[in-house]
Amino acid sequence: MIRAAIVGASGYTSLETIKWLLRHPHVRITYLASRKAEQPISTLFPELSGRCELPIRAFDPAAIAAEADVAFLCLPHVASMEHAPQLLAAGVRVIDLSADYRLTDPTVYEHWYKHKHSDMPNLAQAVYGLPELFADQIKQAKFVSNPGCYPTAAALGLIPLLANGMADPTDLIISAASGISGAGRTPKQEHHYPERNENFEAYAIGTHRHTPEIEQTVSRVLGSSVKVLFVPHLIPVDRGILETIFLPARPGFTQAQAEAAFTAYYAGQPFVRIRTKQLPAIKYVANTNYIDIAVKLAGNRWVVSVAIDNMVKGASGQAIQNMNLMFGRPMTEGLL
Amino acid sequence: MIRAAIVGASGYTSLETIKWLLRHPHVRITYLASRKAEQPISTLFPELSGRCELPIRAFDPAAIAAEADVAFLCLPHVASMEHAPQLLAAGVRVIDLSADYRLTDPTVYEHWYKHKHSDMPNLAQAVYGLPELFADQIKQAKFVSNPGCYPTAAALGLIPLLANGMADPTDLIISAASGISGAGRTPKQEHHYPERNENFEAYAIGTHRHTPEIEQTVSRVLGSSVKVLFVPHLIPVDRGILETIFLPARPGFTQAQAEAAFTAYYAGQPFVRIRTKQLPAIKYVANTNYIDIAVKLAGNRWVVSVAIDNMVKGASGQAIQNMNLMFGRPMTEGLL
Amino acid sequence: MIRAAIVGASGYTSLETIKWLLRHPHVRITYLASRKAEQPISTLFPELSGRCELPIRAFDPAAIAAEADVAFLCLPHVASMEHAPQLLAAGVRVIDLSADYRLTDPTVYEHWYKHKHSDMPNLAQAVYGLPELFADQIKQAKFVSNPGCYPTAAALGLIPLLANGMADPTDLIISAASGISGAGRTPKQEHHYPERNENFEAYAIGTHRHTPEIEQTVSRVLGSSVKVLFVPHLIPVDRGILETIFLPARPGFTQAQAEAAFTAYYAGQPFVRIRTKQLPAIKYVANTNYIDIAVKLAGNRWVVSVAIDNMVKGASGQAIQNMNLMFGRPMTEGLL
Amino acid sequence: MIRAAIVGASGYTSLETIKWLLRHPHVRITYLASRKAEQPISTLFPELSGRCELPIRAFDPAAIAAEADVAFLCLPHVASMEHAPQLLAAGVRVIDLSADYRLTDPTVYEHWYKHKHSDMPNLAQAVYGLPELFADQIKQAKFVSNPGCYPTAAALGLIPLLANGMADPTDLIISAASGISGAGRTPKQEHHYPERNENFEAYAIGTHRHTPEIEQTVSRVLGSSVKVLFVPHLIPVDRGILETIFLPARPGFTQAQAEAAFTAYYAGQPFVRIRTKQLPAIKYVANTNYIDIAVKLAGNRWVVSVAIDNMVKGASGQAIQNMNLMFGRPMTEGLL
Repeated sequence: MIRAAIVGASGYTSLETIKWLLRHPHVRITYLASRKAEQPISTLFPELSGRCELPIRAFDPAAIAAEADVAFLCLPHVASMEHAPQLLAAGVRVIDLSADYRLTDPTVYEHWYKHKHSDMPNLAQAVYGLPELFADQIKQAKFVSNPGCYPTAAALGLIPLLANGMADPTDLIISAASGISGAGRTPKQEHHYPERNENFEAYAIGTHRHTPEIEQTVSRVLGSSVKVLFVPHLIPVDRGILETIFLPARPGFTQAQAEAAFTAYYAGQPFVRIRTKQLPAIKYVANTNYIDIAVKLAGNRWVVSVAIDNMVKGASGQAIQNMNLMFGRPMTEGLL
Repeated sequence: MIRAAIVGASGYTSLETIKWLLRHPHVRITYLASRKAEQPISTLFPELSGRCELPIRAFDPAAIAAEADVAFLCLPHVASMEHAPQLLAAGVRVIDLSADYRLTDPTVYEHWYKHKHSDMPNLAQAVYGLPELFADQIKQAKFVSNPGCYPTAAALGLIPLLANGMADPTDLIISAASGISGAGRTPKQEHHYPERNENFEAYAIGTHRHTPEIEQTVSRVLGSSVKVLFVPHLIPVDRGILETIFLPARPGFTQAQAEAAFTAYYAGQPFVRIRTKQLPAIKYVANTNYIDIAVKLAGNRWVVSVAIDNMVKGASGQAIQNMNLMFGRPMTEGLL
Repeated sequence: MIRAAIVGASGYTSLETIKWLLRHPHVRITYLASRKAEQPISTLFPELSGRCELPIRAFDPAAIAAEADVAFLCLPHVASMEHAPQLLAAGVRVIDLSADYRLTDPTVYEHWYKHKHSDMPNLAQAVYGLPELFADQIKQAKFVSNPGCYPTAAALGLIPLLANGMADPTDLIISAASGISGAGRTPKQEHHYPERNENFEAYAIGTHRHTPEIEQTVSRVLGSSVKVLFVPHLIPVDRGILETIFLPARPGFTQAQAEAAFTAYYAGQPFVRIRTKQLPAIKYVANTNYIDIAVKLAGNRWVVSVAIDNMVKGASGQAIQNMNLMFGRPMTEGLL
Repeated sequence: MIRAAIVGASGYTSLETIKWLLRHPHVRITYLASRKAEQPISTLFPELSGRCELPIRAFDPAAIAAEADVAFLCLPHVASMEHAPQLLAAGVRVIDLSADYRLTDPTVYEHWYKHKHSDMPNLAQAVYGLPELFADQIKQAKFVSNPGCYPTAAALGLIPLLANGMADPTDLIISAASGISGAGRTPKQEHHYPERNENFEAYAIGTHRHTPEIEQTVSRVLGSSVKVLFVPHLIPVDRGILETIFLPARPGFTQAQAEAAFTAYYAGQPFVRIRTKQLPAIKYVANTNYIDIAVKLAGNRWVVSVAIDNMVKGASGQAIQNMNLMFGRPMTEGLL
C-alpha cells in the first residue's frame, strides 16, 4: 500500500487528487496539509463527507515523512519551491503539480513567472512527468514535476508529426480552450458566475506562461529549438481542454499516413486514443485520464485536435499516473 | 425629455438600468455617480463602449439636482438610506432599488436587515413601486421604493386567488428559484463559476429577507395579516426567476375560474401575461419586463407558476415602469 | 465474478451502468443487447473507446442466460415488460430500470402509463429495489424493479419524519428539480440546447407519473395510504436532482430532534448523508451514489432538502447497489 | 413606415428579426409566412405573447406584395431560391438570410452546397449585404443577400491588415467558435442538451461552407484571390461568435499601427468597436449589433480577435441594418 500525503489541500487539484486516490486500490491517503488546518477536509469540500474525513493538518515535513511515501504538492507556484525541498530532504518522494519545477532553465522561469527560482538543486534533478514521453525517467524519479494542463495536450498533439518529418517545425499555432476549473478555486471578478457564463473569449494572446513549457518539451524531443504561438480561450464549462493545433504540412503525406504516425507513436499507451471516426470532444474525455487526438489535412496545414480533462490528464490523473510509474504499479491502476 | 441620474453605477442593476434607459425615447442619462469615479462607465462595463461614454462622477446631490429630474439608486441596502435623503432634499425624484424603504415598519426592517433605520421621514413617505397594484400612488410619488425581485413575482402570483376568496390565506408556500445575477456583482466563493455551474441548491430556508416584504404586500392588499413560507433556490443561469406557489384551494372552484380571476385581476396590465396553453418559463420572459403566470388545480392545492426576469421586472425594468408613471409617460414606454 | 448483461444499450442509463460496472472489481460485462446491433458500443458512445469495445448484439435470452448472471434492463417502459419475462424464464436475474414493475397495482400502472400491464406473474414477484428500505427482500430477489429517480429522493426524504410521528401525513408537497439527462437521450424540440439552456420551468404539475410511485412507497412503509403533491422542474444541468419537501410539522419537536430522527433512521446506511452544517447541493452528489438530506423547521412546516445524482442513486448506481445485495457482495462495492 | 414581411417564420432568425423589428420605430410587421400556418406566431414562440399576435399565413407573393415593402427570408438554403424570385417579381424588396445568393459563382455554390443553383438572374443582381464594406451598393439594392455569421466576423477581421499591406495574404487561419443557436432550431442528437452542455469541440475542419464565402469577400476587397483555413468550434452558450484569426505579419509594423489601421478602416462605422484596453468577449456583444475587434502582434503573426452575436450582427441585426440602408433610414435605427 502506498501512503500518500497531499500538501495544499484546499484547492481544486487537491480535491481531484483525493477523489481519484480514494478509488486507487493500492493507495491510502494518510496526511492532508494546508494552512486551513484544524478542520476535517469534508468541511472544506462537503462532497467528501463520508468518503474522506481526515483532518487537515499543518505542514510538517518530518511527520509527513513518517506517515507517507509520496507527497502530492497541490500548491501555487512559488509556494511549491518553498515546500518541496523540505519533503525531499526528509526522504519523501514528491510529485509537484505546480509550475515551479517544469522549466529547466531558471532564467526562463524567472522571465515568465516574475520570480527568482530559489531551489536550484532540486530543479536540476526534477523529472518532467509526461509519461507518454518520459516513462523511463519517471520510473527512477524521486521527484516529479507534473506538466501543465495546456502543455500536456499541446506537446502530445504536436510531437508525432514533427518527429516523423511530416510537418515543419516553424509557424506552429495552438488555439486552445479550457474550462474554468483551470483558473483555480479563488473567486475573482472575471470568473464570477454571471461574468463567465454564456461567455467565451481569448486571453493572454502569445503571453501565456505555458508557452515556454510547450516549447521546452517539443524542443527536447525533437532535439532542436522550436517556438510556438499559443492562444488560450475560456469555455463556460467546469472542466476540459480542447486544443486546435495548426502545423505546416510537408508535401507528399496523406491524412491516413498522419493518423498512422500518431497510432505508431503512441502504441501501447493506454491513455492515448487516436480518433479517426469522430473528432475529439471534451465530453468524451471529461472525468477520465484519456487524451483524444485526431488529425486532418486541410490545404497545406495539418490540423490536430486534442482533448483532455484539465483536472485529470491535465493535473491529478497524470500525477497518479506518474505515481504508479514511480512505485512500480501498473500505469492505469486506479485511473480507469 | 426626462433627465436621469444613476447612483451606485458599478453594479448589475445599474448596468441593466443604463441599457434600458438608452433605448427609452424620452430619457437622457445625464449623471452617473459611484465611488469608482474618474473613469468612463464603459471602462467598468465594456459592453457599453460606444453606447454610453459618460464619466463616472462623485456623488454630489446639488449637481445631480441641477442636471437630473430623477435618480435611480442602484445601491446596496444601508447605503441607500444614506444617499436618498440628500437627493430628496435637493428636489430630485428618487427611485430606490435597494431594500431600505420597502418595509414600512422600521422594527421589521431592523429585525431582518440587522440595521437600525436612519431615515424615518422618508420611510414614511416612500411609495412601494409595484405598478400592477399601486399605480395611483406611484403617479403622485416623489420617492418610490422599487420592490425586490422575488417579492414582485410572489405578490403578483399570490394575490388574485386570495383576493377572490378562492384560496385560504394560510399555509402559503413559495418555492422560488433565481439566476445568479440576483446575487450581485461582487465575486464570492459560492458564486465562483466552477462552484455554481452544474449546481442547484436551496438556501435561506424560511429565513430569506424577502419574506417580510412578500407578507407586507399581500397583507396590505388583503387587509389582513398573512404569513408565507418562502424557500429560494439558485439556478445556474444568468437571469430569471421562477416561483412555484402552493395555496390551499377553497372547495368549489375550477381551474378555469381561477384563470379567469387572474385575467380579470390584471385586466389592462400590459406586462402581465396569464398563460393557459403552456407553463411560464424563464426563457419566455428573459430580457423583458413581462411577468408570466399560470395556475393549476392539483388536489386541494392551487399551484401558481410565475416567471419574471429578475433584472428587468424584478429590478431595472420595474424601476423604469415606475418612472414612466411618476412622469406621466405611457407605462410601457421604452420597455417593449 | 458476476457476469452482467445490459439490455437496451443505447440510452443514458446504459452508458452510466457500463461506466460504473467497468470499475466494479467483481463484475465483468459480457453481453450488450440493443436494436442498434452489429457495431461496437464505442461507436455509439465514443467516450467508451478503449474502455469497453464489446459489440452490440441482438436480444437473445438464451444467449444472455448462457453468458450472464444478471441483466440490467435499460429499456423504456412497455419494452421492459416484453423483455423481462423471457430473461427470467431463461434463469437470468433481472434488474429493471424502467417503470414497468414499480407500481404493484396494475390498474394504477394502466391509469398513469396508459398501457395495460402484460406481465402479471412477474409483476407479482418483482421486488422494489430501494435498498435503504427493503434490503432484506432485495437480497432474496431474482427480479428487482429499480426505483424512479424522483421517487428515490422523495421517499427517503419523506419517510423518517412521518414514521416518527413528527409530521402529519397530509398535504405533503414536493417541489423537485432535475437535470436534463433525466429526460433521456432522444432529441426533442423542448430539450434542444438553445431551448433548455438558460431556462428553468415547472412541468407536469400534479400529473407526473412518479407521483403514484412515491405514494406507494411511503404508504407501504407507514402502513396507511398517503397522498403527495409532486411538482417537477427542469434545471439546465446534465445531471442531478434536488427536492424541496414540505411536511406539516406536528407541534413540540425541534429541528435537532428531526435531524436525530433522520440520523437514526438511516443508521448504517453507507450512501445516506444527513447534513446539518450545510444544505444539500447537486454539486456535492454529482457522479456519486450518495443521497444528501437536511431538515429545517420553518414555522409549522418541516422543509426537507434532498439531493441525488439522477443517473447514479436515481438509476444506475442504485441498480448496482441492488445487484451487490442480490449477489451477496458488499453494498458499496464498485460504488465509492 | 416600412411594412415588413417575414417568410419562414418558424426558425430562430425569424424570432430574432421579429423581436428587433418590434422595437424599430419606422417598421410595422404586416405578414408572417410559414408552412406552419393557421396559428398565431405566439403559439410557436410563447415569448412573443402580447408583443406580436399576428397569424402565420401561407406564402402568397401577391398578398405579400400588397401588404409589405420588404420581405426577410428566414429560410434554409434551397428554399430561399424557390421563394425569392416570386417576391422579387411581385415587386417586393427582399433581404435573404439564407446562403443561396451569397456566392456569386454558381459552380462554387453547387460544389459546397451540393445543389444546382436554380435562379441565375437574381443571383446576378443580388447585393452582398455587409454594410461596413458595401454600403453604397446596398443603398441601391432591391435584393440583398445577408452574409453568413462566421463570414461577417472573419471578413471584417481579416481585411484591414491585408488591405494596408501589414499582413501577407497567405496562410490565413481562422479558429472560430459559435453558440448553438447558429445550428438552427431543429432538434438533433448532437445538439440535444446533455450532449452539448459541458462540451466543446471542433467540427468541419477545413470543410465548412462558410469558407468560400469568406474567401470571396476578402478576395473581392483586395482584388486578388485569397484562401483561408477555417476551423469552427461549438461553444455551450445560446448565442455569440468569437473568432481568433492568425495572419502572417509583414515586418516593420507595430501593434499600435495595426490598431490605427483598424480604427481608420472602420472610421464612421457605428457598429464596429476597435478594442485596445481589453479583448473582445461574447458577453460584451451579446444581444447587440456590435462587432468588437482587437489585434495583437505575437511573434511573426498578427492575432485578430473578433466577437459578434451570431443572431444579431451575424443574422437579423445585420439584415435590419441592410433594410435601413435600402430604405434611406439611419443605419442604426432600431438597432441600439
